[in-house]
This record gives sequence, structure tokens and C-alpha cells, in this order.
Amino acid sequence: MIELQPVGWVRSARSEAIDDDWDSVQSDIELDGSRFEPASLRGLEEFSHIDVVFLFDRVADDEIEIGARHPRGNRAWPEVGIFAQRARMRPNRLGVTTCALTGVDGLTLSVRGLDAVDGSPVLDVKPYMVEFGPRGTVRQPAWVHELMRGYWQAEHGGGR
Amino acid sequence: MIELQPVGWVRSARSEAIDDDWDSVQSDIELDGSRFEPASLRGLEEFSHIDVVFLFDRVADDEIEIGARHPRGNRAWPEVGIFAQRARMRPNRLGVTTCALTGVDGLTLSVRGLDAVDGSPVLDVKPYMVEFGPRGTVRQPAWVHELMRGYWQAEHGGGR
Repeated sequence: MIELQPVGWVRSARSEAIDDDWDSVQSDIELDGSRFEPASLRGLEEFSHIDVVFLFDRVADDEIEIGARHPRGNRAWPEVGIFAQRARMRPNRLGVTTCALTGVDGLTLSVRGLDAVDGSPVLDVKPYMVEFGPRGTVRQPAWVHELMRGYWQAEHGGGR
Repeated sequence: MIELQPVGWVRSARSEAIDDDWDSVQSDIELDGSRFEPASLRGLEEFSHIDVVFLFDRVADDEIEIGARHPRGNRAWPEVGIFAQRARMRPNRLGVTTCALTGVDGLTLSVRGLDAVDGSPVLDVKPYMVEFGPRGTVRQPAWVHELMRGYWQAEHGGGR
């Protein structure tokens, strides 16, 4: 077993895992003041985006999936393995999300588009570097585009 | 403290953390056969890339940096906080890398461009989805481009 210690916690107005419209969410990451100092974040404000590694700590042990399932339980989408989706009920319950960094103040990071609910333990913060994006052409199945529609921005259908 | 269990391990010909030319490295991730089955990976082969969360387990406790340092000890680059760089001597020693998925066979994933040495514990595997890339324009400081030059592909200088 590997023991990790949170480096901080998410502070957000969103306390439930809703499936959509995450880019409308402004939240903070507060680093653990007993271990870190502003120098730990020095220079981070020069990056527009960060990668946040966090724990989906609301997922109970008996909810964790190790085999295959339909994403969001939707039978219109194929039954795929837990490592072929980014669902939160996964082994180790780790989330990794790239979000916009809107400010750094002392030990507090302000971010937009972090899909982690209030109180989630943060295990790492890394600057997003374009060089760490995928090298080569990206290919992904069609169901992903359907599932992700509205995830960052809610769809306001109907009328004008 | 949060306890995590490796979901698998890296098998690679590269057993030392060299700083460059990682896209030349073909390696495998072997999932833990006592807990997982091929269904855990079903459908993953439809993705060209995956995100791998792994542990820099060669980094000793007393090497971990919590403040600021010059990336790679290079004084030509600014002294930045550990959370403003992706160096491996970081709190929790977590690595997150997007690499190309070249094959899936049973519980073995073949990948190219994973910057983890042989034996590294793998904590999660996620499909790379374009929708999880940064939303909005990316900005990063100039030293990153210099540091990352040659990281994926070695530079063969000299000659013409």
C-alpha cells in the first residue's frame, strides 16, 4: 500500500457531483498551511492552466467498479472497462483534471472548471504544459463526444 | 493519510530516470492479475492515448522538495515552486503523463512515451479524451519550452 497525504483541499460552492456545466464553477484550492508556504507556488501564476490530482472521496468502497459498465448507466453507450472511462467510481478514486488558473494568493489557488466537489482532498497540483499534451493524432470512440456534451458547458436547448 | 493500492506496474527497458527522448521508449503496463480481468480494459483500444498516474518511487523521502528550486538545478531558469514545475521530487511523488496506447493484450497495455522507469507502481489509467484538454488559450513561461526541448525527442545536433 502507498500512503499519500493531501497537499490541500477544494473549496467550492458545489457540494454534489452533478454531471454537467463544470466550467461555470469557480472554486479554490487551499494548500495545507502546516506544510507549505507561498514559495511552494512561486511562478505558478505564469501558467494559464493547471492539472489537479484529487480524490473522489465521496465514493464508498462498495461503489468502486473494477470490471465493465455502461458509462453513466446509459445502455445506448457500450459497456466498457473502468479503465476505458473516467468515471469516479474507479480503483483508487483518483481524478485528474485540467482547469483554468484564475489567481494565486498566498496558499490559495483560484480555479475555473475543476470538477471536484467541496472538501475533496487534493493530492497534487502541476502546471499544464502544452508539451505534456498528446503527441500525435488523437482518436477516441463516438460515445465520448456524446457523454461530454454539456460536461463543461450546459446546453441551453429550445427556442432562442 | 490516504491509502492507495497499485493497479499495476510499468515494465520498461529504461530503469533510470534520464531526462530526455522519452517518446523513443516503448513500455508495458501490467495490471494486477489478482484484482483485474480483461473486462477492466474493454474498449480501451478505441482510444489512441491514455493518461497514466504513477508513483516516482525511486525518489527518497529526504529528496522531496516543498519550496522553490531551479528546474533541473539550472540557474538560467527561474527559481519556481514545486507546484509550478513537474519535477519528480514532489510531495506525494505523483506523475501524470499522456502517452500513446499501442496495444492491449489481456491485462497488458503497450504504450509509447511513458516517462516512468521499470517497476514504477501505476495508480490509475484513464482514456485520453480531447474534451479533457485545456479549455481556452494556454499560456506558459518561456523556460518551459527550453526545458522540454528534447524531452520527448532527443535533439541530434551538429552537422547541418
